[in-house]
Amino acid sequence: MSLFQTAAVLCLVFMVMGNNNPGTTLHLKEIFIGRCWDYKEIKHKEFPLRTDVNCNDLWNDFYKAFSYQAPCDVAMEHYKEYIDLASQNVPENKGMFWSGTYDIAHEYAEAGKRFVTLEDTMIGFLANSLIWCGSGSTGANFTRCPSWTDCPLESSESFWASASREFASSVNGDVYLMLDGSRKDKPAYSKDSFFSKYELPALENVNKIVIIVKHNLDGPIKETCSNGSIIDLQEDILNRGFVFNCLDDPAAIIHLLCADDPEARECKMVNRNESYNTLLPVINSKPSRFNY
Amino acid sequence: MSLFQTAAVLCLVFMVMGNNNPGTTLHLKEIFIGRCWDYKEIKHKEFPLRTDVNCNDLWNDFYKAFSYQAPCDVAMEHYKEYIDLASQNVPENKGMFWSGTYDIAHEYAEAGKRFVTLEDTMIGFLANSLIWCGSGSTGANFTRCPSWTDCPLESSESFWASASREFASSVNGDVYLMLDGSRKDKPAYSKDSFFSKYELPALENVNKIVIIVKHNLDGPIKETCSNGSIIDLQEDILNRGFVFNCLDDPAAIIHLLCADDPEARECKMVNRNESYNTLLPVINSKPSRFNY
Repeated sequence: MSLFQTAAVLCLVFMVMGNNNPGTTLHLKEIFIGRCWDYKEIKHKEFPLRTDVNCNDLWNDFYKAFSYQAPCDVAMEHYKEYIDLASQNVPENKGMFWSGTYDIAHEYAEAGKRFVTLEDTMIGFLANSLIWCGSGSTGANFTRCPSWTDCPLESSESFWASASREFASSVNGDVYLMLDGSRKDKPAYSKDSFFSKYELPALENVNKIVIIVKHNLDGPIKETCSNGSIIDLQEDILNRGFVFNCLDDPAAIIHLLCADDPEARECKMVNRNESYNTLLPVINSKPSRFNY
Repeated sequence: MSLFQTAAVLCLVFMVMGNNNPGTTLHLKEIFIGRCWDYKEIKHKEFPLRTDVNCNDLWNDFYKAFSYQAPCDVAMEHYKEYIDLASQNVPENKGMFWSGTYDIAHEYAEAGKRFVTLEDTMIGFLANSLIWCGSGSTGANFTRCPSWTDCPLESSESFWASASREFASSVNGDVYLMLDGSRKDKPAYSKDSFFSKYELPALENVNKIVIIVKHNLDGPIKETCSNGSIIDLQEDILNRGFVFNCLDDPAAIIHLLCADDPEARECKMVNRNESYNTLLPVINSKPSRFNY
């Protein structure tokens, strides 16, 4: 069975099963192009993530990669032109990977001020949180798109796989990987993760991989630097010829978690005046003029 | 002298003096419209900041307010149509004002997850960090715009004044104001601030104003809830018929500051294992796939 036939069968299965996935994000083009100029003219107008790429060219390359195509039959290579055009160098010692820790990793990275994640590079920034898939007749399907589990060459999974590989090849020096040692349903590290499949194999000019294992303040502490799947990760890193350092709950990460829950036991500080007040409400959901 | 003549003279002064201000942000329209769809379709697709406004209409109202006009002669009222169209209700107890604390206030607000600032509402989100001013011949001046100190009716100052007034009228319940008690050059509170001029007078359905005074970890502690300009603020609040509560360095804010500087004296935690590691680099400048 050819790749196309396989994809066609999978798509049929997917259509028969039905799904409630949303379709391509409405106004995808305007959002994409608007983000591109925003990145260039406002968010990263200056060093180190400054870029000279043409935003309309970027959109054309991105759209061409999946439009008018079966959504289950988009190979990673389709995004090559887009990724080559948008590619940037990540500053030394600033690259941060994440797996199962999207929120806290990005909160800590602070949009490239502290660290640079894939979603802080142009390649990832433009596509972050968007949904897209092709349609043979109208270019993009705005009604529904398959999910990643529906087929092996799903158009956005192929994109993120390519983007992850490119990102890994563009970091250097000490790089960071944030994992969640409190995950209930999954191990902190898995050989099926993007880090294992696309990022670790693409690392090149790297001194050291700093593994950060964070735990929820209210537990559980399921895995740490000394046990569980994180030992597998350390072996995989050594087998690739890199060295690692592993940190359980470094203070900076605990402080970020404590901003949400300052009354937690782990959050009490030594030198605070007893009269300090924790009346501020906690966060309630997961979901010039600057001096005036 | 008419308002127009005054503005013309001021613009002449401004031109003669010269200035190095940049002009209107390049690709202003694409950024504005892209942000609008991003806000509607991605960032706030769901309650509580969901909005049904038409993005092209919003752009037209915004552009009409200042385009083809002298940049020093744009009254607050010019933005009325834009502001009326984009206006939203802020959820109860979620409104946060800031003055001199842009970075930490927005870091704490977390884009509306914890609190809602003006820049998290559609009105402010679309214009945040942009520069714009009119030109009589070409619509917008992309070469240079006056600064706020150049003239009293500068086009973006008028915008932010109108937007601040509208924001204040849309918050309710307990509202928050974050001030900086470590400012070297200015008092934490000033009667010339936007909060004093446009926001406090526009508050309506408010129970209480919670003043948060933050201090740099390395000091100085210039003003607190008990002294300096913050006493003036408390008087102004009482004179408007509102009550207040004032917090110096609430724990949640200290934790955010400590994420940047975990070795600081104020950041030591009581129950931490001594082996914890602070090797992570500090921030170096001020300037679904989520589970994979």
